[in-house]
Amino acid sequence: MKISELSRRTGVPVASIKYFRREGLLPAGRATAATLAEYGDEHVQRLRLIKALTALGGLSIAATRDVLAALDRADTTDGTLGAISYALPVPVAESPATDSEDDARAAAAAEADVAELVAAMDWQVPSASPHVRGLATALKELRRLDPHYRPDRLVAYAGLARSIARLDLERAAAIDDPAALAEQAVIVFALSAPVLELLRRLAQEDLVRRRIAGDAGAPGADAAPQPAPGGTGAP
Amino acid sequence: MKISELSRRTGVPVASIKYFRREGLLPAGRATAATLAEYGDEHVQRLRLIKALTALGGLSIAATRDVLAALDRADTTDGTLGAISYALPVPVAESPATDSEDDARAAAAAEADVAELVAAMDWQVPSASPHVRGLATALKELRRLDPHYRPDRLVAYAGLARSIARLDLERAAAIDDPAALAEQAVIVFALSAPVLELLRRLAQEDLVRRRIAGDAGAPGADAAPQPAPGGTGAP
Repeated sequence: MKISELSRRTGVPVASIKYFRREGLLPAGRATAATLAEYGDEHVQRLRLIKALTALGGLSIAATRDVLAALDRADTTDGTLGAISYALPVPVAESPATDSEDDARAAAAAEADVAELVAAMDWQVPSASPHVRGLATALKELRRLDPHYRPDRLVAYAGLARSIARLDLERAAAIDDPAALAEQAVIVFALSAPVLELLRRLAQEDLVRRRIAGDAGAPGADAAPQPAPGGTGAP
Repeated sequence: MKISELSRRTGVPVASIKYFRREGLLPAGRATAATLAEYGDEHVQRLRLIKALTALGGLSIAATRDVLAALDRADTTDGTLGAISYALPVPVAESPATDSEDDARAAAAAEADVAELVAAMDWQVPSASPHVRGLATALKELRRLDPHYRPDRLVAYAGLARSIARLDLERAAAIDDPAALAEQAVIVFALSAPVLELLRRLAQEDLVRRRIAGDAGAPGADAAPQPAPGGTGAP
């Protein structure tokens, strides 16, 4: 197909397609003349992935390039998941140090919180993992900000996070082809975060509405007495 | 304290403090002379909150202003949690429609997926909720992108999201003062998302490393045979 058709099918403007090609995110099409190229279904899929990573995943162009490079390097199933995971940007950037002594104390306390959590969960991750460092940065901020900060509460969250990670990994478990596995890893690792956050927001909204309605004591949906009034969709 | 001291204690440059004041994010200090103002601990706390919302929560200045406005309006505990939750930006922006027929079909299917999930969970949320609409947008993209997309898998994720939301709400349950509750709601709703995402990443990393090490069949950390080599921190 021509670039105009590629644009029509993906909703990505021609100028953006050319930009993604220049930036190395999209492979070149098959040249059919000096200024014409033929694109295939693999370009449609790649453009949809670029769009999803930038719009849905919130990744920068540079981060998207890193993830796609890890995807294109995937040639064995072993290691692919880890490479994709490490290529993703960590959601918390390290903030510049402020008041040095106070800052150093908060940083040390947060690092100890993370180390204790990793040990309690028996997580086999190196202390240099970007995720360990990112969590320490986030907890450092929360420690200083939240008067109700309690690191022992993290274990309950971590247990649920582990259950979520198991569901994530199951989605990749049956895939043997390295390229297909890498693409699935990108989808699961990079694009599930907003879905999960929205599910959490929906569950929060439900609990808050029930609390206001005086239904806060209900232990779960199964025990909720009233049927959804005007609810759409079949159970 | 003077603005220079406020800057030193929070690590926010004086120019940024002045910018936040102009933008209405930070209340004015008490004027002590034509060009001098005195700031208090409430300014330190507010600046830390602004910093956390923008850096840790990834909120824009406009979104931060909305959240702080909801926080300052909080005068009863009822409704405060909901107001803060709705003031937060939805993590998925609606994308412009592309190829119309294909797009409309994917949008309708995604909306049906969300309605079915909301009914299955017995979530008491209106279909106009920004979280319902955000989830539909995210699922629309995933439907088109993910060859392994299965909406029935969402229920397992939603159940875990509900458990997380319960932990979230517990953190606000014991707070009676509306202002304190509102600030806790901002912390829990806006700043827990990166922590949760990092916990998920850590759990994924642990599972991937165990899989590579041939330990994928272990049902949980409790059953994992090997102790963490060189692990940091005490249990």
